[in-house]
Parts: sequence; structure tokens; C-alpha cells
Amino acid sequence: MREVFHQSLEDVQARLVEIADLVTVAIDRATRAFGTSDVALAEEVIEADAIIDEKAFELDELAIEILARQQPVARDLRIVVTALRVSASLERMGDMAEHIAQLARSRFPERAVPKGLKTTFTRMGELDVEVSRKLAELLRTQDLRIAEAIRDADDDIDELHVSVFEKVLGDSWKGEATATVDATLASRYHERFADHAVSVAKKVVYLATGDWAGADDEAAHEPSPVI
Amino acid sequence: MREVFHQSLEDVQARLVEIADLVTVAIDRATRAFGTSDVALAEEVIEADAIIDEKAFELDELAIEILARQQPVARDLRIVVTALRVSASLERMGDMAEHIAQLARSRFPERAVPKGLKTTFTRMGELDVEVSRKLAELLRTQDLRIAEAIRDADDDIDELHVSVFEKVLGDSWKGEATATVDATLASRYHERFADHAVSVAKKVVYLATGDWAGADDEAAHEPSPVI
Repeated sequence: MREVFHQSLEDVQARLVEIADLVTVAIDRATRAFGTSDVALAEEVIEADAIIDEKAFELDELAIEILARQQPVARDLRIVVTALRVSASLERMGDMAEHIAQLARSRFPERAVPKGLKTTFTRMGELDVEVSRKLAELLRTQDLRIAEAIRDADDDIDELHVSVFEKVLGDSWKGEATATVDATLASRYHERFADHAVSVAKKVVYLATGDWAGADDEAAHEPSPVI
Repeated sequence: MREVFHQSLEDVQARLVEIADLVTVAIDRATRAFGTSDVALAEEVIEADAIIDEKAFELDELAIEILARQQPVARDLRIVVTALRVSASLERMGDMAEHIAQLARSRFPERAVPKGLKTTFTRMGELDVEVSRKLAELLRTQDLRIAEAIRDADDDIDELHVSVFEKVLGDSWKGEATATVDATLASRYHERFADHAVSVAKKVVYLATGDWAGADDEAAHEPSPVI
């Protein structure tokens, strides 16, 4: 029974890594589509999100089956419940990538990236891709040092998020309402993407360290949404 | 054992209803604070969100304890897993109310509601409160007809959400960037609040009807975030 459970967990882990890899492809394409107004690439992201949703759903069903058949307790139970939560976060990360792609598509053939914010959004995109890659690596290796790197990158993203609002609300901002809306939404999606990654990383860490009190404290890392 | 499980489920249900009631208070106060620029009321919402987070965390711990001690299977297992997911959605609804309150606070003593959108946001706020009240009622009574009313209200909110962007991106919009940012974020928070409620309502319905394939299909009810 123990052996069966161990194999089931390996299956769960492999599926989580697979979804995280798909999310990395999605955010990489979405931020490139957003940066270069590549509507075909944006379409790819939007279409591929259904695959992420489907895989997350299948993983949830597998986790519930494991709970029913193998009735894990203690730490084993925590691992399976955590898998359900990680799956939900990955699914939302895919949604954020999709939303960024939708922004790119909706402005086509205009540029989606507001003038004066190209460097900022390029950097936010790169950081989101980095966060996503590291998250897949964390899920693959369980190397807890990666969690710290994810948190550091999230801090950088939060700073960029704040800087977008400073720019948009500053005296020198000459953007049209469209540019203001796009900057607001795109920044929010980029920031939420990384928040979810931090939330997953925390759960992986707490699984390893056993202190559960902070593992659900997602809100603590979400910066105030407004300046 | 069956009797113990039944009592545990009643405890879970009572706690979900309690959290949904707290969320209703939060969204009611948040939308009033936003509409009237009442910074004291906004502060109350922001402070009270920690209570919602704490209660959601306690409920999750209870659900995990039930899984460990009573090892439910089949529909019983689905109920407990669903409780975990409902708790996560309620917690996010509380966060959305908090974000609306933060918007109200951040603009004080200026008005948070952008000019020309007062009626729209008043209506969105009323609908969010209605959705939240109905959700608590659905969790309390398991009367599935309420789920339909929640979905209808969500459709109305989605329409208002679209109308906010039409207004902001229209030729007649004279708002400053601040007003544009506020309208964008506030509309998004109102819309997400109701989305989470629809997601919970679906889960309650699917628990009753047994068809799980659609219960996680949250994305399907999220309108395109941009016009």
C-alpha cells in the first residue's frame, strides 16, 4: 500500500510539473505577444489555456481518487491536499497568461504596450517567465532554495507594478484612456501571476518544514493594489 | 461513525455560512465606502479581512482533520474537498471587498468613484451584495434555485463591467488617468467577486447533481477582461 501511494505521489508530482511547464510556455508566449503585438502568438496562448484547464481538472480527479482509495493521513494527506491547491494556482496562472494575450489581441493592430512603459513590461514579462520556470523546477526538484529566488523575483515584480501606477498617475503621463486601462490591467495580471507562484512556493516549503500556519497566507504577499 | 461524519459536515456547513455572512458584510461596507468616500468604513473592511482569512484557514484545518479521521469516500469525500474549494473562493471574495475598500481609502479625501460612473458602480455594488447574500443563503439552505439567481446577477454584473470599459474607452470620456485606473480596477474587483460566487454556486449544484465535469470550469464564466 505504501508503495502504491508512493507511486501515486510521483504521478501527481509529474503532472504538476507538466502543468507548470505548460504555464511557462503560456506566459513566455503571452508576454512576447504583448510586447510585439503578435496576434497569432496571442491566439495560441488563448487556445492552449483549455489544455491547462483540462490537465488541472484531471490532476484534481486523480488526487481525489488517491484520497478515496489510499486514505492517506498526516503528512501524506497534506501532500495530496496541497496538490489540489497547487493545481488551482497553476490554473489561475494560466488564466493570467491568457488575459495578457487577450490584451495583446484586443488592441491589434495597435500596440498593446503603452508608450513609455515598454521597458517596464518587458522586464515584468521576463521576471514572470523566470518565476514560472523556477516554479516548475521547484516542483520537479523540491529544492527549497528555489522558493527564495521566486520570492525575490516577486518582490522585483511588485516594485515594477508600483512603478507602473506611479508613471500612469504622474504629471508627465500623456497616455490615452486606452493606454491607461491597458497598463492597469496588464500590470495587475503580471503581478497576480507571480503572486500565485509565491503562494505555491510557500506551500511546497511548508510541506517540507511542517509549519502550516503561514502556508495559506497568500494575502500577505499581495501588495496594495493601488498607490 | 456515520453520525460523527454527519455532525462534522454540519459544522463545516455552519462555518461556510458564517464566512459567507462575513463576506456579505465586507462587500456591503466596501461598496458603500467606495460610493461615499467613507474612509472609516473602508478601514473597517480592511481590518476585518484578517478575520475572514483566519476563519477560512480554520475551516480548512477542520476539513483536513475530517479527511484524516473519518476517511470519507465517494460523495462524502467530494463534499469535504468542495468545502476546501468553497473556502478558498470565499476568502478571495473577501480580498476583492478589501481591494474595493483600499481604492476608497487611497483616493480619500477625493471621491473614489469616477465621474459619470456613479450609477454604474452603485448598481454593481448592490448586485455584488445581493450575490453574496444569496450565496450565504444557498450554502445555508442548499436550495439550488438560488444558484440560478446568482448566475443571473452575475450576468448583469458582467454587462455593467463591459459598460464601464465602453464608457472609459469612449470619445466622451474626460476622466483623468486616476479616474481611468480606478474605474478599471474597481470594475475588475466587482466582476471577480461575482465570478467567485458563481464558481461556488456551481460547486454546490454539482455536489447535488453529481456531474463533476463542469464544476471546475470557472474560466468559462469569466468574461473577456478587455473590450
